[in-house]
Amino acid sequence: MSEITRPSKAELTAFMHTEFPQCPIDIESLAHHQCVVRRSIGVQQLRPGGTVSGPVLMEVADAAMYVTILSEIGLVALAVTTNLNINFLRKPSANSDVIAQCRLIKLGKRLVVGEVTLFSDGDEDPVAHVTATYSIPPR
Amino acid sequence: MSEITRPSKAELTAFMHTEFPQCPIDIESLAHHQCVVRRSIGVQQLRPGGTVSGPVLMEVADAAMYVTILSEIGLVALAVTTNLNINFLRKPSANSDVIAQCRLIKLGKRLVVGEVTLFSDGDEDPVAHVTATYSIPPR
Amino acid sequence: MSEITRPSKAELTAFMHTEFPQCPIDIESLAHHQCVVRRSIGVQQLRPGGTVSGPVLMEVADAAMYVTILSEIGLVALAVTTNLNINFLRKPSANSDVIAQCRLIKLGKRLVVGEVTLFSDGDEDPVAHVTATYSIPPR
Amino acid sequence: MSEITRPSKAELTAFMHTEFPQCPIDIESLAHHQCVVRRSIGVQQLRPGGTVSGPVLMEVADAAMYVTILSEIGLVALAVTTNLNINFLRKPSANSDVIAQCRLIKLGKRLVVGEVTLFSDGDEDPVAHVTATYSIPPR
Repeated sequence: MSEITRPSKAELTAFMHTEFPQCPIDIESLAHHQCVVRRSIGVQQLRPGGTVSGPVLMEVADAAMYVTILSEIGLVALAVTTNLNINFLRKPSANSDVIAQCRLIKLGKRLVVGEVTLFSDGDEDPVAHVTATYSIPPR
Repeated sequence: MSEITRPSKAELTAFMHTEFPQCPIDIESLAHHQCVVRRSIGVQQLRPGGTVSGPVLMEVADAAMYVTILSEIGLVALAVTTNLNINFLRKPSANSDVIAQCRLIKLGKRLVVGEVTLFSDGDEDPVAHVTATYSIPPR
Repeated sequence: MSEITRPSKAELTAFMHTEFPQCPIDIESLAHHQCVVRRSIGVQQLRPGGTVSGPVLMEVADAAMYVTILSEIGLVALAVTTNLNINFLRKPSANSDVIAQCRLIKLGKRLVVGEVTLFSDGDEDPVAHVTATYSIPPR
Repeated sequence: MSEITRPSKAELTAFMHTEFPQCPIDIESLAHHQCVVRRSIGVQQLRPGGTVSGPVLMEVADAAMYVTILSEIGLVALAVTTNLNINFLRKPSANSDVIAQCRLIKLGKRLVVGEVTLFSDGDEDPVAHVTATYSIPPR
């Protein structure tokens, strides 16, 4: 039985930039079953009316979940999102980065369930809340 | 009490190209509480491994819902997504357009609920299924 | 490799009455990846105000999904609900049975995704819409 | 403009016993946008195999959300559940009460979003996680 090699923050960052080039994120912190990621917002991420588009929020949440899972199971495994449920709560600021706080609720052998709370950087009220499930294929 | 002016397919298309410039869609058909939209897929919409990224599927579903709602309530109203739940079912083809079939389940005064089934063009098995809720502000 | 023995409607009905004694349902029809079940409503299923309680609707949807899955994979397998998402659409009638129409969207080896539309018997507008995921354990 | 009268724990308990007689709960604690409720489990709440049934978990989560909302907006308002999303995480114990910890994520004028984490009393790993949306009718 092989040990899982936990990737470092630098390894995870490099992996994510290759895997999700359209959604460049910075990993702010990593902890047991948790992580915080930051996504800078430019004109490409905005909708008319001056707000971050919904799909960008979903993309950041998905990336934050992926980072948190990979930090637990290693970079080799291939996890795929099977379900994502998002509640949009407030209009995000057009001038702030998006911050995603992720926490795994269950890390099973086959299914991982987590939640992600999304903020506009500097505001304490969340702009969206996500729960998502990833399926981990058999080794 | 004012009548709602239903927008034409051309008006809706123009509106969507302005409102969602990052997600250019073609409206294939419009019917009572239903529509079908098409999204062409290029390199920007793919992930390593050769598949359409999840956020692109969510974006197309969201746009399909928006088109269907606006075709019922008119272009003036401002509807916002409050909840979106997506189940990813199969790996989408990297070489096919994404087709989204939307159907409104409830068109209330304050909340609209609909479902969207997403396909890779030419395949009959869906790649994802979405239910979403939009909130319609008071006039 | 053993063949799956599809249970008959009578076998499924008997199984459900044992497995879900608190939610006695009648199987109205069974077809490929689909079924319709009926749940009679008594005082125990109502809330003050004269409407069917939300948990009863969820229970009927869950039972309808279970019946549809078991009719495909056989009575031996043990499927468990992993996710259920319900949108409540209209107030159900206190005097009508609840009818649940279930359709499987994906029948995978590990995960099954389906949708259930719930009606008050005799009304054509649905009272609720459910999507649910079941996990099927390895044989 | 009238002040909202916050109900006491005793008033909320009495209200819930009338409103949800099929799901008798005890309110363990109430705080700003939060509450903890307890539901005792008997034979009626179990499924064959010795586990608490899924619909009972959904019922307790729904009741916990309702208590938390009413403690903020008062007993007069009529809130209805519009969406409930539940992830089942682990098999609940047949011999333990169910504990539900609820937290409101957004308390808007029209929509309230909250999350509920469900436990078997004495275990620290949750058995299920719920996000739910309530609609509050115009006054």
